[in-house]
Amino acid sequence: MDVGRRRRASDRRTARPSDRNCEVISSVLASAGAIDYGRVFADLAIILIVAKVASELFERIHVPAVLGEIVAGIVIGPSMLGLIDPSDAMRILAEIGVIILLADVGLEMDLKELRRVGRASMLVAILGVVLPMSSGVLAGSLLGESLNASLFLGAALAATSVGITARVFGDLRALSSTEARIVLGAAVADDVLGLVILTVVTRIVVQGSVDVAGVISTIGLAIGFLVIAGAVGLTLVPRLLAWVGNRAVSPATVGVLAAGITFAFSAAASSAQLAPIIGAFVAGTALARTDHHDRIARDFKALGSIFIPVFFLQIGIDTDVTKFFSGHVLIVAAVLTVIAIVGKMLAAVGAWGTNTDKLLIGIGMVPRGEVGLIFATIGVSVGVFQEDLYAVVLLVVLLTTVVAPPLLKWRLTSNDSASAEPEDENVTEEPVGGWVRVINDEVQLHGVPPSRLVLPLALQSSLHAATAQPNDALLDWMHTHRNSTLQWDEETSQMFLDVLMRGNARSWRFLDVTSVITRALPEVATAIRARRGDASELGPTHLAQMPTVEALRTKVGRATLADSSL
Amino acid sequence: MDVGRRRRASDRRTARPSDRNCEVISSVLASAGAIDYGRVFADLAIILIVAKVASELFERIHVPAVLGEIVAGIVIGPSMLGLIDPSDAMRILAEIGVIILLADVGLEMDLKELRRVGRASMLVAILGVVLPMSSGVLAGSLLGESLNASLFLGAALAATSVGITARVFGDLRALSSTEARIVLGAAVADDVLGLVILTVVTRIVVQGSVDVAGVISTIGLAIGFLVIAGAVGLTLVPRLLAWVGNRAVSPATVGVLAAGITFAFSAAASSAQLAPIIGAFVAGTALARTDHHDRIARDFKALGSIFIPVFFLQIGIDTDVTKFFSGHVLIVAAVLTVIAIVGKMLAAVGAWGTNTDKLLIGIGMVPRGEVGLIFATIGVSVGVFQEDLYAVVLLVVLLTTVVAPPLLKWRLTSNDSASAEPEDENVTEEPVGGWVRVINDEVQLHGVPPSRLVLPLALQSSLHAATAQPNDALLDWMHTHRNSTLQWDEETSQMFLDVLMRGNARSWRFLDVTSVITRALPEVATAIRARRGDASELGPTHLAQMPTVEALRTKVGRATLADSSL
Repeated sequence: MDVGRRRRASDRRTARPSDRNCEVISSVLASAGAIDYGRVFADLAIILIVAKVASELFERIHVPAVLGEIVAGIVIGPSMLGLIDPSDAMRILAEIGVIILLADVGLEMDLKELRRVGRASMLVAILGVVLPMSSGVLAGSLLGESLNASLFLGAALAATSVGITARVFGDLRALSSTEARIVLGAAVADDVLGLVILTVVTRIVVQGSVDVAGVISTIGLAIGFLVIAGAVGLTLVPRLLAWVGNRAVSPATVGVLAAGITFAFSAAASSAQLAPIIGAFVAGTALARTDHHDRIARDFKALGSIFIPVFFLQIGIDTDVTKFFSGHVLIVAAVLTVIAIVGKMLAAVGAWGTNTDKLLIGIGMVPRGEVGLIFATIGVSVGVFQEDLYAVVLLVVLLTTVVAPPLLKWRLTSNDSASAEPEDENVTEEPVGGWVRVINDEVQLHGVPPSRLVLPLALQSSLHAATAQPNDALLDWMHTHRNSTLQWDEETSQMFLDVLMRGNARSWRFLDVTSVITRALPEVATAIRARRGDASELGPTHLAQMPTVEALRTKVGRATLADSSL
Repeated sequence: MDVGRRRRASDRRTARPSDRNCEVISSVLASAGAIDYGRVFADLAIILIVAKVASELFERIHVPAVLGEIVAGIVIGPSMLGLIDPSDAMRILAEIGVIILLADVGLEMDLKELRRVGRASMLVAILGVVLPMSSGVLAGSLLGESLNASLFLGAALAATSVGITARVFGDLRALSSTEARIVLGAAVADDVLGLVILTVVTRIVVQGSVDVAGVISTIGLAIGFLVIAGAVGLTLVPRLLAWVGNRAVSPATVGVLAAGITFAFSAAASSAQLAPIIGAFVAGTALARTDHHDRIARDFKALGSIFIPVFFLQIGIDTDVTKFFSGHVLIVAAVLTVIAIVGKMLAAVGAWGTNTDKLLIGIGMVPRGEVGLIFATIGVSVGVFQEDLYAVVLLVVLLTTVVAPPLLKWRLTSNDSASAEPEDENVTEEPVGGWVRVINDEVQLHGVPPSRLVLPLALQSSLHAATAQPNDALLDWMHTHRNSTLQWDEETSQMFLDVLMRGNARSWRFLDVTSVITRALPEVATAIRARRGDASELGPTHLAQMPTVEALRTKVGRATLADSSL
């Protein structure tokens, strides 16, 4: 992942000296040993302040904040304003940022959920990887790039960044739709597929072996690392952290240890010749299964809010903007963007047989976001990308990510106007055992309840959702009633207090996915939407974070106290 | 502050090459450009895991955790196990750690409190700086060190680390004693005096001017920077953050911006030829006056829990343990340790005229802790310290910090056995207007209440303490009754809920200082004590942190809900 190696290549050119400029090299070497901390702090200050100004501005014009940070990086970088020169210090901090980003993705990934991803999602995911990648490799080769470079171009097109899609679906109250479920499921599968592809492609490039036997053994090795590291992580890490958590004197110990484990897994991946982020991702999934999940997620969030912007700005800073104006770059970028969009659209046929809007699913898979960028930086670090191909991938990522939200909105609203609020026609009698029951770790809806029960059933289900998975019937019914107005009464208020006190992050996610929060608690919805706008909050599951809930708890606690005049 | 410069000196030696080893240098230069991220992550993993193991172990044998981290650094460093080689990457992270540490000290410093520091505290602080520093400079010169080195040795002896003392006083329920108040007040004044001395000494050494006019102008300049940066910070930063806080879409913006401002101030101090930590401290005091104080403190805490251990371990890693076995080092260290202890003891005469145990005050001022170490690293960075003097300061810091807690405990318990629980003899009638009143931003105690009122009056005062300062009469009365047992009834339970909901960090601090938490809520006291054990929680005011209170709020909220069966 070290973007640094690109600079290194030019260092090496100066490093073949004739005797007479030996003196010069020596003085460069002497000054290279000195760390200018003043410069480090100044760079860090500029990056953090500019990152936040940019993401707030882009947020207001409804463009994903992550794009704001990359553009800001280009603007302050050496090819435009020159406020910041690329430096090793910032690269190290950026690298820590991407480690935390991937650990966070792992931390929020529910392995159970991955197992539950349906046939449709899995097919969409596989087609969405195979189609753009194979076309990308072909197009790259035809346009005159080397096979290695084409492999990386193709791999960068395979990724899906689900954060942006999840947000648009959420804004339009469509997260509980079948389409959204298929897209989000496919994206989760995509994360894992993408890491396997990254591993394979990187090893092929590094070893130079492209024969079938070599590729198969490499795929085996990549999957082997994921399986072994995953097995070690999933069995040992939760036990270790539980043991430490019970004995630790200081409450900070668990969080720091979790960070230590994440860096250890990253180092292990690196010494197995894999990208460090793969280790970080595996560590994240292992940490997700510990009892201290919430505490670790909160600590990582605070770290990420500082370091992830450094990563995105560094991408912009490392971009040579003059490369954008080359005809070759623009042609390759245009071709690849078309492949990126069409490839994902075609992947939607994987949802064949479901009663869904295939076009909507296709559009939902389009944004590449941060995942494509991570591939590009790795391409640079293993030496197959030069500045022009880096610029190509950056352009493709920017275009696919900008184009998706308005298309999604257009498609969703034109669907919506066709379907009006359903009448309570098919309503059935309440079955024996109640409308909502938990069977086999699944929250099941039985019968068709009347629409006035949306709020109480949603609150009841959200409490169950803390430990079980809502079934399709429940989500479908909630989605049908996504626009019905919700009325609070004494009973639902009490149920809501109960969710506040006993619910967990998954309960809140259920309420958010079913648009109950947007409708019943618009203030809270704004707060949650704001969090989603953060570049550091790219995962689809970062929907309801503890601080919001905590603030609510305090608020409600205070109100309860005042009302009951204890 | 860059410890790196020490290595740099040796780099420079290899950097004066004859022509024939030019080739070698070139290859070193080429490899110097490459960042080995795998190594960075491995080092970080080792440092974080070892830091937590060490601090937990030391905590259990009642030795301050920060010493555990330094010793661990020595053990894993190149002079012993060699698990970690000194690297620029870790130095940069360590430097970020010390910036966050000092910003945190500033963030927790109440400027109002500094203004209220009494005559006794101020005299103890000044004597406690002047006596050890002048004797240290003299001893250094007599023992054959250069004037510059002696100046830094003296400066390192001037510092007081109050975290360790505050903790021992707290453990023995003596934080509300007059002695504790004098020591803590003196330590706060010491922080500011220490930064001025550091600035002056650094500039004298860097400029080489030691004439009276030069020293005076340097002192002026140092104070000038503190005043100007302080004025800019205190007027602009709160307004800027309030403006941003009201408009920001993302809740993370304020915390990231605060970090950006901290690094900007550090860079400004650095470009004014001052230590970056001075800028970080000033930024911290400015951030303390913003509305978002709590949010910023929480974000900095999470950052600090990762980076501050890197700083302390780096100190150990940079220590050449073989230097400890030199006769000269041991002699200088022994002499300076005696000066360090006796100097602070004598400073206690500054409390002349108060009815206090001067010996207890003197012992309380003895630990040097992290402040002396920061001075030592700066001494290395400006080139006046070689590895032997670095080892000397390290030994002095370790000895003074280890020796103080048992001495404090001995003195406190031998005092305690002399004074029994007072009878309710002098009890007066409740005055008109109540026992506790807030007048001129001061929480005042009127009359002498009976001992059974300790709990209700403490809870009532803690709510007032959220915005006003408890006066001496109140603290003295609380201290007299520090061992009386507390009984909860319906009224006090309700008052406690009120404190939970409406109190702030200062309310909790008041309850902790008066030992009410230890006696009435032993579980909470354990949690708070554990936080104090953290090396990242060295400030005297880190006594009651929001997470503890939040956890409590949730707990109480739940209980309230269940009880009132809402």
